[in-house]
Amino acid sequence: MNIAVLGTGIVGRTIAARLAELGHNVTIGTRDPEATLARTAPDAMGTPPFAGWAAENPGIAVAGFADAAAGAELIVNATNGNASLDVLAAAGAGNLDGKVILDIANPLDFSKGMPPTLFVKDTDSLGEQIQRTFPASRVVKSLNTLNADLMARPTLLADPGTVFVSGNDADAKNTVTGLLKDFGHDDVIDLGDISTARGTEMLLPVWLRLWGALGTPAFNFKIVR
Amino acid sequence: MNIAVLGTGIVGRTIAARLAELGHNVTIGTRDPEATLARTAPDAMGTPPFAGWAAENPGIAVAGFADAAAGAELIVNATNGNASLDVLAAAGAGNLDGKVILDIANPLDFSKGMPPTLFVKDTDSLGEQIQRTFPASRVVKSLNTLNADLMARPTLLADPGTVFVSGNDADAKNTVTGLLKDFGHDDVIDLGDISTARGTEMLLPVWLRLWGALGTPAFNFKIVR
Repeated sequence: MNIAVLGTGIVGRTIAARLAELGHNVTIGTRDPEATLARTAPDAMGTPPFAGWAAENPGIAVAGFADAAAGAELIVNATNGNASLDVLAAAGAGNLDGKVILDIANPLDFSKGMPPTLFVKDTDSLGEQIQRTFPASRVVKSLNTLNADLMARPTLLADPGTVFVSGNDADAKNTVTGLLKDFGHDDVIDLGDISTARGTEMLLPVWLRLWGALGTPAFNFKIVR
Repeated sequence: MNIAVLGTGIVGRTIAARLAELGHNVTIGTRDPEATLARTAPDAMGTPPFAGWAAENPGIAVAGFADAAAGAELIVNATNGNASLDVLAAAGAGNLDGKVILDIANPLDFSKGMPPTLFVKDTDSLGEQIQRTFPASRVVKSLNTLNADLMARPTLLADPGTVFVSGNDADAKNTVTGLLKDFGHDDVIDLGDISTARGTEMLLPVWLRLWGALGTPAFNFKIVR
């Protein structure tokens, strides 16, 4: 499949590399490819400069948001939650029409100190905001409930746990579920329409505190039943 | 231990019966014992009248909130979240001083339709509200993330999953953790101080949607790591 991954942080890089490894034709999208490739210092999260990663992944194209989205059948939103609507607008609504958007972003608000709070929750969600803003796209919320390494390679855990899909379009959820299974996710629960993204986005506060309590992000939620 | 369970709904009844079975001296508290025992119709949730349950559990005393709390070393808040502060005030701040409050309630708001939303979240929690209102008590939030039957008897699931404790007082968390282990909860994660109750209370939205998706409340979160 032709896939655009929007976002060059750890989540975008990890998902892009895993999709390429599985044989997909992947383009990673960024606002200004020249500027992104020219950076030589780690970002605020300590992520190493992008150019080194790009050099190690020569099979993955780097393009502006709109160019990346134009050629893609499926678009992965791997941006920070507070940038997501802006980035998708930069990708161009016309480039999103009819396409599946796998939305991994979380509406984290770091402006009020740590741990972050959520800038939308409970009566709305980032997934719904994206679906409302780009009504001709087919948004599927998933993978926002675990660490990037485990998103892409859940079998790093002996018991990989559960991931969730939320979305209004059954075919789009099937497409995403297929990718999730290819990643190694055996237990995928379809929660229902995109409004159920409220539930999975609201997992972040306990996820962040579990990270603190366990001292590692290498854990996942499993729904035992 | 002398334990007061405040609340005569399904959660209160289930926890009270389980504690009595484990040998504790249990009093179940209600606003007006005579009125509660006189009811002959199921409540709005379809819960059968209390008198039948009380007759089947003759070893469990029934008393007003204050009388129940006065004689207790540990108090279980098994009320509806929107009634919890009022019920604990009726129990009497003096009757709560120094005591462990095991807070199981969730801040569910049913006034805006189904599924319910949360009337406090993200920057505060019901657990914190209770701790602030009764500062001499020792609040431990726990068991609010699963169905009443599984709270009391987690081994009904082949894989019982995880429960969480949040609270400011280490001794109080140890006391509650001891009860949880007696119930059959082998995996208890201490998330930290009472502010971490924000995380577990915010699990409710996905819990409610999982109930819908799975068609049963007989499931639990397990933290695989």
